[in-house]
Amino acid sequence: MNAITKLKDLPIGLAASGSRQEFDSMGTVDVPADKYYGAQTARSLQHFSIGDDRMPKAVYHAYGIVKKACALVNQAAGRLPAWKAQAILRAADEAIAGQLDEHFPLYVWQTGSGTQSNMNVNEVLSNRAIQLLGGTLGSQQPVGPNDDVNMGQSSNDTFPTAMHIAALDLLDRRLLPELAQLAEVIEDKAAEWMEVVKIGRTHLEDATPLTVGQEWSGYAAQLRAALVNIENSRAGLYELAVGGTAVGTGINAPPGFSVQVAQRIAELTGKPFITAPNKFMAQGSLDAMVRAHAALRGLAVALMKIANDMRWLASGPRCGLGELKLPQNEPGSSIMPGKVNPTQCEAMVMIAIQVLGDDSAVALAGSQGNFELNAMRPIIINAFLHSATILADGCAKFRTYSVEGTQLNRTKIASYLDNSLMLVTALSPVIGYQHAAHIAEQADASGSTLREAALASGYVDAATFDRVVDARAMIGHGVAGA
Amino acid sequence: MNAITKLKDLPIGLAASGSRQEFDSMGTVDVPADKYYGAQTARSLQHFSIGDDRMPKAVYHAYGIVKKACALVNQAAGRLPAWKAQAILRAADEAIAGQLDEHFPLYVWQTGSGTQSNMNVNEVLSNRAIQLLGGTLGSQQPVGPNDDVNMGQSSNDTFPTAMHIAALDLLDRRLLPELAQLAEVIEDKAAEWMEVVKIGRTHLEDATPLTVGQEWSGYAAQLRAALVNIENSRAGLYELAVGGTAVGTGINAPPGFSVQVAQRIAELTGKPFITAPNKFMAQGSLDAMVRAHAALRGLAVALMKIANDMRWLASGPRCGLGELKLPQNEPGSSIMPGKVNPTQCEAMVMIAIQVLGDDSAVALAGSQGNFELNAMRPIIINAFLHSATILADGCAKFRTYSVEGTQLNRTKIASYLDNSLMLVTALSPVIGYQHAAHIAEQADASGSTLREAALASGYVDAATFDRVVDARAMIGHGVAGA
Amino acid sequence: MNAITKLKDLPIGLAASGSRQEFDSMGTVDVPADKYYGAQTARSLQHFSIGDDRMPKAVYHAYGIVKKACALVNQAAGRLPAWKAQAILRAADEAIAGQLDEHFPLYVWQTGSGTQSNMNVNEVLSNRAIQLLGGTLGSQQPVGPNDDVNMGQSSNDTFPTAMHIAALDLLDRRLLPELAQLAEVIEDKAAEWMEVVKIGRTHLEDATPLTVGQEWSGYAAQLRAALVNIENSRAGLYELAVGGTAVGTGINAPPGFSVQVAQRIAELTGKPFITAPNKFMAQGSLDAMVRAHAALRGLAVALMKIANDMRWLASGPRCGLGELKLPQNEPGSSIMPGKVNPTQCEAMVMIAIQVLGDDSAVALAGSQGNFELNAMRPIIINAFLHSATILADGCAKFRTYSVEGTQLNRTKIASYLDNSLMLVTALSPVIGYQHAAHIAEQADASGSTLREAALASGYVDAATFDRVVDARAMIGHGVAGA
Amino acid sequence: MNAITKLKDLPIGLAASGSRQEFDSMGTVDVPADKYYGAQTARSLQHFSIGDDRMPKAVYHAYGIVKKACALVNQAAGRLPAWKAQAILRAADEAIAGQLDEHFPLYVWQTGSGTQSNMNVNEVLSNRAIQLLGGTLGSQQPVGPNDDVNMGQSSNDTFPTAMHIAALDLLDRRLLPELAQLAEVIEDKAAEWMEVVKIGRTHLEDATPLTVGQEWSGYAAQLRAALVNIENSRAGLYELAVGGTAVGTGINAPPGFSVQVAQRIAELTGKPFITAPNKFMAQGSLDAMVRAHAALRGLAVALMKIANDMRWLASGPRCGLGELKLPQNEPGSSIMPGKVNPTQCEAMVMIAIQVLGDDSAVALAGSQGNFELNAMRPIIINAFLHSATILADGCAKFRTYSVEGTQLNRTKIASYLDNSLMLVTALSPVIGYQHAAHIAEQADASGSTLREAALASGYVDAATFDRVVDARAMIGHGVAGA
Repeated sequence: MNAITKLKDLPIGLAASGSRQEFDSMGTVDVPADKYYGAQTARSLQHFSIGDDRMPKAVYHAYGIVKKACALVNQAAGRLPAWKAQAILRAADEAIAGQLDEHFPLYVWQTGSGTQSNMNVNEVLSNRAIQLLGGTLGSQQPVGPNDDVNMGQSSNDTFPTAMHIAALDLLDRRLLPELAQLAEVIEDKAAEWMEVVKIGRTHLEDATPLTVGQEWSGYAAQLRAALVNIENSRAGLYELAVGGTAVGTGINAPPGFSVQVAQRIAELTGKPFITAPNKFMAQGSLDAMVRAHAALRGLAVALMKIANDMRWLASGPRCGLGELKLPQNEPGSSIMPGKVNPTQCEAMVMIAIQVLGDDSAVALAGSQGNFELNAMRPIIINAFLHSATILADGCAKFRTYSVEGTQLNRTKIASYLDNSLMLVTALSPVIGYQHAAHIAEQADASGSTLREAALASGYVDAATFDRVVDARAMIGHGVAGA
Repeated sequence: MNAITKLKDLPIGLAASGSRQEFDSMGTVDVPADKYYGAQTARSLQHFSIGDDRMPKAVYHAYGIVKKACALVNQAAGRLPAWKAQAILRAADEAIAGQLDEHFPLYVWQTGSGTQSNMNVNEVLSNRAIQLLGGTLGSQQPVGPNDDVNMGQSSNDTFPTAMHIAALDLLDRRLLPELAQLAEVIEDKAAEWMEVVKIGRTHLEDATPLTVGQEWSGYAAQLRAALVNIENSRAGLYELAVGGTAVGTGINAPPGFSVQVAQRIAELTGKPFITAPNKFMAQGSLDAMVRAHAALRGLAVALMKIANDMRWLASGPRCGLGELKLPQNEPGSSIMPGKVNPTQCEAMVMIAIQVLGDDSAVALAGSQGNFELNAMRPIIINAFLHSATILADGCAKFRTYSVEGTQLNRTKIASYLDNSLMLVTALSPVIGYQHAAHIAEQADASGSTLREAALASGYVDAATFDRVVDARAMIGHGVAGA
Repeated sequence: MNAITKLKDLPIGLAASGSRQEFDSMGTVDVPADKYYGAQTARSLQHFSIGDDRMPKAVYHAYGIVKKACALVNQAAGRLPAWKAQAILRAADEAIAGQLDEHFPLYVWQTGSGTQSNMNVNEVLSNRAIQLLGGTLGSQQPVGPNDDVNMGQSSNDTFPTAMHIAALDLLDRRLLPELAQLAEVIEDKAAEWMEVVKIGRTHLEDATPLTVGQEWSGYAAQLRAALVNIENSRAGLYELAVGGTAVGTGINAPPGFSVQVAQRIAELTGKPFITAPNKFMAQGSLDAMVRAHAALRGLAVALMKIANDMRWLASGPRCGLGELKLPQNEPGSSIMPGKVNPTQCEAMVMIAIQVLGDDSAVALAGSQGNFELNAMRPIIINAFLHSATILADGCAKFRTYSVEGTQLNRTKIASYLDNSLMLVTALSPVIGYQHAAHIAEQADASGSTLREAALASGYVDAATFDRVVDARAMIGHGVAGA
Repeated sequence: MNAITKLKDLPIGLAASGSRQEFDSMGTVDVPADKYYGAQTARSLQHFSIGDDRMPKAVYHAYGIVKKACALVNQAAGRLPAWKAQAILRAADEAIAGQLDEHFPLYVWQTGSGTQSNMNVNEVLSNRAIQLLGGTLGSQQPVGPNDDVNMGQSSNDTFPTAMHIAALDLLDRRLLPELAQLAEVIEDKAAEWMEVVKIGRTHLEDATPLTVGQEWSGYAAQLRAALVNIENSRAGLYELAVGGTAVGTGINAPPGFSVQVAQRIAELTGKPFITAPNKFMAQGSLDAMVRAHAALRGLAVALMKIANDMRWLASGPRCGLGELKLPQNEPGSSIMPGKVNPTQCEAMVMIAIQVLGDDSAVALAGSQGNFELNAMRPIIINAFLHSATILADGCAKFRTYSVEGTQLNRTKIASYLDNSLMLVTALSPVIGYQHAAHIAEQADASGSTLREAALASGYVDAATFDRVVDARAMIGHGVAGA
């Protein structure tokens, strides 16, 4: 065995300092000697250092899986010698594990195809493989970034593949479990408070009673529906573009490549990935990502309602609704001593708004494809991973520091129920809507109780009133209504 | 049988002129004598004549179904005498058929619960039933708007029920069929042109070849995916709030009401409606509508890409891409003689943008619920029906007047293919990426053909070039890539 | 004088029935005999009957002004004989007055340049002029739609000109006066209630006091700032594209035309219109419209806050904040007797949301120009006129039916003030923030008054407390803070 | 002089390791011993570690200015002893200079008032001042975070003050200069190419000619208008809330404080800051920020059009429009050798889309204020600084790496001009629109030149044609049209 074909067990890292020369088809470029990346990464760093938005590292971890799967397929088919493949696979595993993160410095605002990030991966894996094989960094020998690491691939098909893998990983590993946990805690609260009768509110105005548990069951149902919707939105993400190469036709990829790589990725991730049935759609559009982000937005819409309800119901302590007591996590004011604010709810509302804004950007970007490529990929994957991350973290904090510790102010809840006029609704089937309305208006005008006004009206006697106007009889059974 | 209980077969219409008095719990109001509506409708007209946006008539047609189903259930249970029920049912059928449309004049910008439109329906059905039974209009006898037509109901549960019915009807009857037809026509085009090789374009720049049919198959796949997504979004709309009444508990509705009414609505519409498993969600949120509109947006995003591609590919006739010839439906310019423009594509792009904007509004409105009610219903149903209508009509016009008549400029297509440099990609596996790149750059700089530059480079001989650089061999097989 | 050159004083209208033939450069078309429009309008009706969205009539009224101004300039320069000009001017005046509205039936979703609406105007004015001159309808003689009515013009320059005129007219005539009136009424309320001390709320939580008048002065200030911003946004709209013709160069328009027409339009409207200093921007972008709509959105954002505050402060009557009493305009519920809801506030919130959604659409459309034309004009003018109209009407209704009749619940306001703990803030400079915080927390925990807890703490004596904790001393002076 | 009152000249930094105890009104908390921050910062880090979004450092630099100005005013008034003030001022200067950045670790998703970031500043400045005075960290003596650093202030008034300062600094220092530079370079290009005649395009279709310089003058005009609009949007940002304290009344701030602090901030920054004329608006709304972000969006809309035009005009090299040659900064494809893409344009388009999305979020957040506070501040300042930063950097990169190096393909430009049919427009005034249209159609159908078709038509002779159809005569004079 030739020395160059033997994999050395070298730790990650380049001891050199200063710079070294790397080349690409446009010429040579100096790169930092302690980085694995090559000429095209360096060019991108020069041309696209815009803001602080870096391509999320999760994209590179997912790209590691793509490169690994391709190398495995190429090796199995004999297109890539086993010794080259082993070096690439070792490097890809390191990328997957996040061990090469510092070598992926590129910005979000770059080429719309993600080519520069693909080349960053190709260059890093190439040089790391060269290092492992004892070659010369930057020589592109014996493992070239284009010819070997990128074999049978294009940015046009691999970048959306990495997008799907990264998005699904975050959904499955972080967002869906956090969301399920939040839903569970709310379901527990709903169960705990299922018999606590309270006044309902519609149009912000007093309405007929329900139980606190029923109210919270609605929150849980919203979250469960949002969760199912996010789960369903994964369907489009399971379809992978890889194998379509430059424009979807699979030029330079061998027959069977797309199916085989998708299968490998499915094995490596344990997810039901398949090759996209239509590569022209898979590369020319980002519709599946747009749909998946819409599912994130669906969650944001639900969370905004829940967080708003909680902070309004907890408003006070003396001059608000005051039905709930949220945990007091921190002093609320730099000037008003003793003030405590619904800060977790506010953070959640802001997160929801951010997701709505990013969703607008994603849909707009999704509409801007042309011909064989939608060149708005970086903004979409960045927005998706951002939205899913802040939703996941937000659900965790909201649950831990707000929902779990929420308690009822039962005195206040009972007092509202006693004073409300809307229990008059139960009289409606007995004395008719118009008479009932006049009783309520009379009580409102005079400040009397509903019972006083009802008896004074002459439309109903005390016995009937007491039998009919019973809040506990007005709350139905369970969550499904009459 | 008492005279009042006998249904007269009177035609729709009120011969009276001037005004008559109607009353509600706040007093009496003058209403036009030739309209069936009552006091609350008149109050709403006075207070909410804002812009020209009227509550879509489809909402009232759907409300007719709700009122009919409730009357049937109430009659079957003996709560509503058969003779009253018959009158209400007759009136409801007339509403369903659109025969009472002129009696539903209210605006979109009204109470957020839709109560005024529910009362409009109650009043109109009440007075029409009174007319049919020979009673006095405005007397609310023997059929009252609240006590009889609205029996066991609230606006809070019936309005979202009518929203779901109206939305689904429009999807099933108009949008989904039109979308399917458009997809079919595009699929036909894709099949027709499956062997016509053309140059691909990524980043707007020349890329490797594909066939026109492959390109169009991508459009069709986008539309098919959007169609499936819209179909799936119906799931949430099948769940009906009716039976939850005021706040979701079903107060004043008898046991079994929600299930029975949903079943009746399913029978009347032929759609798989069920009672919402959680009424607090069904009335406190509009999440299912937000999700359904997101599916409309998914279609808009796809259509925008397709319409943009078509108008760019048809640009010219002398100074654009010129691959497609769109039908010439009208003179394009008031000043430039003979100019023809891609007007159907432009209309479609504007429709898509409108749907994106409305989608933002819908999501925002969906986030603004409080407690037991999301009081943003009118804006959401108006936006939904608007979006679905212009998408359906837009698909029809786009198909009829643009897609079906689109033809290829085969001369231009062939000429691009002959001149492009990106067929060099096929050389990459043979001579390596870097050499291939230099050939392409050399051809670009010198203006020579790819073949000339390749042979001049010395990296490849003529025989190899001619064997490898064969556009027909670069297009893969079918739509799934390698 | 030749008979044909003499203007007949014929009333508007065509007595004919059935159809007549009209022609354009593509051939002949049947049009309804009782309509003035010609072939291109008929073609557009056939190809673009999408939804119910018609190009707003205000666009045609504005177009009348454009045509009038051009005819005046062309006549003055001798390019258009006086007798032709007189006929066109008479027809244009009728269009301006709205008397020809039924002859302008086109849809919003048409060609993106608005050419079809320009041709609709040209055709109607041509035929009306022909009628007035005793000619044959559809003959385009002696007044042709292109050569005479459209003389020196293109849709590309006249349509944005009409957009600006229509937009400014609506702002000046409707929105700004309504907004000013609303601001005034709120300022009156602020003055009336300037001494009514109430508890402040931040984060929805009890805070230090202010007066009701101060709170409302903030609303007024928001509206005044929004008003100024709308006024300022007119600057870009005063710049007119007319004279740029097809692509901005002014081809086929004589020297001086752009300046002269802008001057005529200024005279006709009494507004400071000028010719756009750069026609390539004026026709290639719609940036001025995007900016003007952003100003409408600024108003929507302010109104949403104000309407939300009002409905929250009026929530109750027994289980909400209950500081305000809004006018009761209609029964609030079909099921809950006596319920009154903040319906004007809800309508306003929905209007605001619609404006935000339309603003997203406008910005997106604004970004989609290409080369010498932004072909997204119809959606933008439709959205602008829609937003401005519902804002204007909404302000009128909101003022008339909600703000003007709003009253204070002074008992409730006083009771909150007495019970709140946040007056502790005044103790902070005296005893330090930490001690003050402990007093507030102690009062909250024990349910005692602030005074009781303060004295019990030992940090402050009764005399000091009574001197320092004086709500009236905490409200500062006027609206500008300390 | 007491030792404690003497300022020591100690470098920034805490040599300690492990943790120390800090306290606030809720108790004690461990904080890292090498950080200056205290208990409330530590609590926030625990409760709000959501995603990777940190409050931008620019907010803290601006907050340093606020604290400095307040300390100066408090010192001048004798409320703060000079020795305390000096320590605070020194610490504030260090914050302003960015030297304390690592001590400001908080997240964007926190309390909506920004209180936690204000307290972070208070704690860091307190501890740094204590260090400088030789006190014990965490003792809050002799310089307390609330009583001294925050003297006369609240988060409610200081946070929006810091927002305005940070926003204006970024606009003035980065965005406006970069934008002006970009506009200048485009103006230079316009001047350079003012005589190069090219074919115009409307609806993407061939139109009448203009010069390349005229086209680019339109881009420049768009940018100049956007620039003026951004400048104007600063007006609202110059109004500062500081002095309004808790709810706008100025409680605990001495008379004159708001005016004096605004004046000091004006002096420190050199900008025309004034105290907000209405503090209830200044704290209860974020309308001025919403308006300022709308101005950023206006720029994004313009940039998107320009970047799109450039990449379309540069499309090719063989199968696109090919009028422009953009600089080739990097290889464009990992699979297609020699491919160069308009990557700067794509980055700019994505930046524009992000700004549009963030603008939606900002407007929505701006609408969500309640009562005396809009608690959506962190999301808005984060979005604003993000948008302004990526626009500024984007303009710089776009200018440097794309616009400056753009060149014309004069051969292509001339060839289009020679072949186009739309020069027929010039014949229209001579032979009438309809005849001209038929000539153009005939040429299109037959593939002949316009001249051939014109002469064949018999409507015009050769001499007339050559005189009238002269592209150079069609381009008008300058940028203002006829």
